Amino acid sequence: MFEIFSYLPTKIVFGVGKVDELPKFVKGLGKKALIVTGRKSTKASGLLDRVIQHLSAAGIESVVFDKITPNPILETVDEGAEVAIKERIDLIIGLGGGSAIDSAKAISIAAYNGESYWDYTRVGKSLKAKGAYPIIAIPTTHGTGAEADPFMVITNTKTKEKLGQGFGDLTFPKVSIVDPETMKTLPPNQTVYTSMDAFYHSLEAFININANPYSDVLAIDSMKRVVSYLRIAYENGEDLEARTQLAWASTEAGITETITGVVANHALEHGLSGFNEKVVHGLGLCTLGPTFLEYIFDHAFKKIAVFGREVFGILEYDDKKAAYIAIKKLWEFQEVFKCNIPIRKLDISKEDFEEMAEIVYGMFKELAEVTPGKLTKEDFVKIYEKAY
Amino acid sequence: MFEIFSYLPTKIVFGVGKVDELPKFVKGLGKKALIVTGRKSTKASGLLDRVIQHLSAAGIESVVFDKITPNPILETVDEGAEVAIKERIDLIIGLGGGSAIDSAKAISIAAYNGESYWDYTRVGKSLKAKGAYPIIAIPTTHGTGAEADPFMVITNTKTKEKLGQGFGDLTFPKVSIVDPETMKTLPPNQTVYTSMDAFYHSLEAFININANPYSDVLAIDSMKRVVSYLRIAYENGEDLEARTQLAWASTEAGITETITGVVANHALEHGLSGFNEKVVHGLGLCTLGPTFLEYIFDHAFKKIAVFGREVFGILEYDDKKAAYIAIKKLWEFQEVFKCNIPIRKLDISKEDFEEMAEIVYGMFKELAEVTPGKLTKEDFVKIYEKAY
Repeated sequence: MFEIFSYLPTKIVFGVGKVDELPKFVKGLGKKALIVTGRKSTKASGLLDRVIQHLSAAGIESVVFDKITPNPILETVDEGAEVAIKERIDLIIGLGGGSAIDSAKAISIAAYNGESYWDYTRVGKSLKAKGAYPIIAIPTTHGTGAEADPFMVITNTKTKEKLGQGFGDLTFPKVSIVDPETMKTLPPNQTVYTSMDAFYHSLEAFININANPYSDVLAIDSMKRVVSYLRIAYENGEDLEARTQLAWASTEAGITETITGVVANHALEHGLSGFNEKVVHGLGLCTLGPTFLEYIFDHAFKKIAVFGREVFGILEYDDKKAAYIAIKKLWEFQEVFKCNIPIRKLDISKEDFEEMAEIVYGMFKELAEVTPGKLTKEDFVKIYEKAY
Repeated sequence: MFEIFSYLPTKIVFGVGKVDELPKFVKGLGKKALIVTGRKSTKASGLLDRVIQHLSAAGIESVVFDKITPNPILETVDEGAEVAIKERIDLIIGLGGGSAIDSAKAISIAAYNGESYWDYTRVGKSLKAKGAYPIIAIPTTHGTGAEADPFMVITNTKTKEKLGQGFGDLTFPKVSIVDPETMKTLPPNQTVYTSMDAFYHSLEAFININANPYSDVLAIDSMKRVVSYLRIAYENGEDLEARTQLAWASTEAGITETITGVVANHALEHGLSGFNEKVVHGLGLCTLGPTFLEYIFDHAFKKIAVFGREVFGILEYDDKKAAYIAIKKLWEFQEVFKCNIPIRKLDISKEDFEEMAEIVYGMFKELAEVTPGKLTKEDFVKIYEKAY
């Protein structure tokens, strides 16, 4: 019999134009906000200015910290926290892709508690975080799910650790404004990578040994939306219906992460983008995903069969056959968007596999344990080899 | 394009045996709890004693208020609040069916703020509730959804108003423990009525003009579970798988209420059980439901068609035909459980329809407004007449 634990205390405000409702939702949450964002796109689109104006309308002063890069690193987080402390902010806005929102969460922990973010992580000093500034998430990509989960992924370049961690109540956004209109300018390749991140959140939650009917129904629904609408947004980024569908798929997938969580495919990917920060997370997931499913096939084929029937409409009653076809379809789907890139083309050397496996297994043992078949460090190496 | 607002800050702990995890989840929430429950069943089953012991294990003293009856009334709520104040409790446990949990929520509002519960309602003095004691919900039926929503339904016998209202953050349970094992002793007719309450929460949220993909996917999933498992639990109440499926259907339906909400069928039912408190809410919904769908047919047939295809597996491509068959199937489904009872057999007189419509339309105008076709008070009277 199934068990479910569900807790998602974020106000999720979803829909075209919802950014303009920001004043209503931030009122009373603080007096001075740090807006954490990237160097370019939210400025170019005018979104940053709009957010500053909306905060001002709610009586909130803004300070902009615009140094966030993809695959955000610890140094930037700690620098942002210094700014937050110096400016005496009491509210943090993550505006941009997953990296901006994740950084906002990490800055909130570091700034409120005073030491380097890493000191509060489970692989750092594990100091107890006693609080955090309220976080508002305004995603401009449709993949990370950070708007509906308490997690953040930050890379420590010194140790090569790309760590995903959550701090429960402290790092759930208080409010997430998910406005598909802000995603229209996302270029085709980013449209694909971010959507595939959402897709793998759902697929991994679906095969997680703790999967349950709540996350299952959302996972299937969100994967269907990606399969139905990704090509449309890929070919015409301005298509608002496709953006809305993909944005909701991403938030739904974020909810599945919060309810059930991902499995070792995500851990393995953190090895790739942890070793080569130019590897985009969503692409890395595609590099590994189908191979990963093949590797755990004997332990997961029943669930993979259901995934294949529901998401790809496979009409095959034998579970092993259906699962086999499902993985084939996944390769084909990824091929449409040129996502079947083997590791050897990602500027990562075979010689690094042992160290990569060592690091990510150390950080994400709990993801290995919820993967069907309960993978070991040696399994991680073998999956990297298979996907080379 | 769709819009979604989602906010559900309750920790939902779902699964067989989960009552025994109560100590873990209540620790730190208070020192003295008022347990709000009915006169018999939680005592007979030993559940009340188990809860008292678990609270004690978490260092929480208990006071029992066991005067809750079905269709809870204002006098009892205010009496409970007096006990709460006198005993200086700081935590409220709703243990039992919807009436116990709804009463716990209302007692929490009244006890914390000091006046009669009615003074804080929108049809009373509309005083501002400044806070509430934390509420823990432990449902022993699978229908109300009160474990996943901020709403409570309390009847004012003097004014014949059966009012449903929520107080946002204040009346979301902090924790809800949904343990299907506690539902095994529910007799067959209660099994049906409570399940049909859940079914109508989902069906009404599904046809609500504000329906969206989040509540839709949960609504369809929960109705399928009721259709697949109600007969099993009806014939063998001890079947734990059926109880688990129905319990999850109920919680899912509660989530759809919180995300999107019910429509006028629920308002109309409050007329029946408000005028004759012996009418069980879930049965009253069935008395009105199919007739209600027939009445709004022209405005709702497209969504009713989808409901029919998804929940009853109807293979018919014409929407009007599919919707027509769906309503027929709903009558048939209800007939299996003897739920097609016309109003004339509920000891309610035709002469009361005008007054009933007047009262419920006054209380629930906003439910009329989210119903396809936007019903008026006159429509309410006509629906009562059709269902007589």
